[in-house]
Amino acid sequence: MIKDFEKVGLFGLGQPNETFAQYFIGKSYLNPICMESIGILNVTFEPKCRNNWHIHRATKGGGQVLLCTCGEGWYQEWGKEPRKLTVGDSVIIPPEVKHWHGASKDSWFAHVAIEVPGENTTNEWCEAVTDEEYEKL
Amino acid sequence: MIKDFEKVGLFGLGQPNETFAQYFIGKSYLNPICMESIGILNVTFEPKCRNNWHIHRATKGGGQVLLCTCGEGWYQEWGKEPRKLTVGDSVIIPPEVKHWHGASKDSWFAHVAIEVPGENTTNEWCEAVTDEEYEKL
Repeated sequence: MIKDFEKVGLFGLGQPNETFAQYFIGKSYLNPICMESIGILNVTFEPKCRNNWHIHRATKGGGQVLLCTCGEGWYQEWGKEPRKLTVGDSVIIPPEVKHWHGASKDSWFAHVAIEVPGENTTNEWCEAVTDEEYEKL
Repeated sequence: MIKDFEKVGLFGLGQPNETFAQYFIGKSYLNPICMESIGILNVTFEPKCRNNWHIHRATKGGGQVLLCTCGEGWYQEWGKEPRKLTVGDSVIIPPEVKHWHGASKDSWFAHVAIEVPGENTTNEWCEAVTDEEYEKL
């Protein structure tokens, strides 16, 4: 299945995401595109895989932009309706906003994640998106 | 032809690039993805279209990252061999380096351009890539 996916994922599957696995449900993969002047990573999610609710903290600037390049997924901000994502969609994630993103139930999903530079930027990881919440999508 | 292209260009054709037309040979199109916290634009070039040699100036940070999403094109830094670009390629353009990019002779080309934030960032536009240079590719 991964092999088939690699053919359509524009920016490469990369390696299993072991660094942040504790903040994900399901398997994800990271492929660094740029880790110098700015952080740009390709993130691939297997079906049902999603990250925990999290917040991009910054005292100035910060946040993240997602460019969806493959499959179907979801993005949701705390207290808002989930937004379905498909190829060609982009998401501007503001700093200080609790949110999660990941694949849909029956599709792999890939997005490029662009870290918006800022001051005192950190990621605050919160609770998982429960199966109960996820199954409602 | 544009209509066909729109179907495959992931991040939209947008509008004719009138703002920078004077620095391009051929027709190009700009579709802004994010113009707030960071500058992210989708740029589409018709076949043979390329921008002039140019330099992303900055006293700190700066430069640009290209993510190629459609067709075939070229990237060249001053004094170096041209690099052929295809879907899934990325280019990290350092600040202060003279370069150009654009489509190949017989293909449309699209890339997302991510502006790396910096201090005192400006674009310095230089001479065009002549037909003679371009035809050698």
